[in-house]
Amino acid sequence: MADVELIKSCLTAHPDFPKKGIVFLDIFPILRDPKTFEILITHFVHHITSHTLALSPTKTIDVVVGLDARGFLFGPLIAARLGAAFVPVRKAGKLPGQCISASYEKEYGTDSFEMQADAIKPGQSVIIVDDLIATGGSAKAAGELVAKLGGKTLEYLFVIELMFLKASSKLDAPVYSVVQSDD
Amino acid sequence: MADVELIKSCLTAHPDFPKKGIVFLDIFPILRDPKTFEILITHFVHHITSHTLALSPTKTIDVVVGLDARGFLFGPLIAARLGAAFVPVRKAGKLPGQCISASYEKEYGTDSFEMQADAIKPGQSVIIVDDLIATGGSAKAAGELVAKLGGKTLEYLFVIELMFLKASSKLDAPVYSVVQSDD
Repeated sequence: MADVELIKSCLTAHPDFPKKGIVFLDIFPILRDPKTFEILITHFVHHITSHTLALSPTKTIDVVVGLDARGFLFGPLIAARLGAAFVPVRKAGKLPGQCISASYEKEYGTDSFEMQADAIKPGQSVIIVDDLIATGGSAKAAGELVAKLGGKTLEYLFVIELMFLKASSKLDAPVYSVVQSDD
Repeated sequence: MADVELIKSCLTAHPDFPKKGIVFLDIFPILRDPKTFEILITHFVHHITSHTLALSPTKTIDVVVGLDARGFLFGPLIAARLGAAFVPVRKAGKLPGQCISASYEKEYGTDSFEMQADAIKPGQSVIIVDDLIATGGSAKAAGELVAKLGGKTLEYLFVIELMFLKASSKLDAPVYSVVQSDD
């Protein structure tokens, strides 16, 4: 599709960042170009309204969950276009008030994510967004937080999916990605 | 104004968070309510188009700079509405490619912010957004990064300004805040 080609053409690859052996795909050039950024948001919203909504019992998306920090770049925009709430997932200790937590594995050891305990109501339809899915550990933890509050995750959405890491098999709902990378 | 009262009514105060003696004002409840979030974004955009644009030689905003992580919640939305680029400021080591840096004082010691070196072109008109201005150290560092790349900061915009810390006197451009707090 022409829109996906345009989005792809904006991504820049940075070998050996943040460390040797990793090729970092930078999504920030998309945000520097207002036309391409609008095309990306429209791509997501069109996918959600034409496909994801059918998975919701009420045919609405109640909550868009975004992961700190790059999920914050897309999540609130998508939520605003859908008339949905935006709810953040952040590292432990960053959110005030009563929170629930879920741990996820990092390369060395584990880390912990939190969500505010009153952020999602039981039965609400939720989508989870982030810029990139690699091993899927952080997405899985976000899905666990939604499930703990009684929300129903309909889909996980990403700009980029690293296909060779096969993360989607770990998650409790389908994955949608705009760009698939095999590198 | 009715819109500001509505925005204020969504803020929640958390005493002694993240540590004793600090009252944390949480902006995330605004994002949970799609109507109030839309009112906030419209408030910002109206202020920018009715006031800030007059400060730009070309009567356009070229770049919206947002601070990691809560500036990412508002900056891309404001940029999209204005047809402007969105450019992030992040902690050192988070952005790939050639970066410039500026240090800022924290309560104990200093920290360092970065911006991608090709993110702003000389002469571009810039606004800087974040959720809250307290002592102004991080906003000042963001302004220094814009100036280093030859950009012209027209205004600093925040949802909340802690007035008693008098941060605006440290900055190289006016401050605009939607909600002013004296606590």
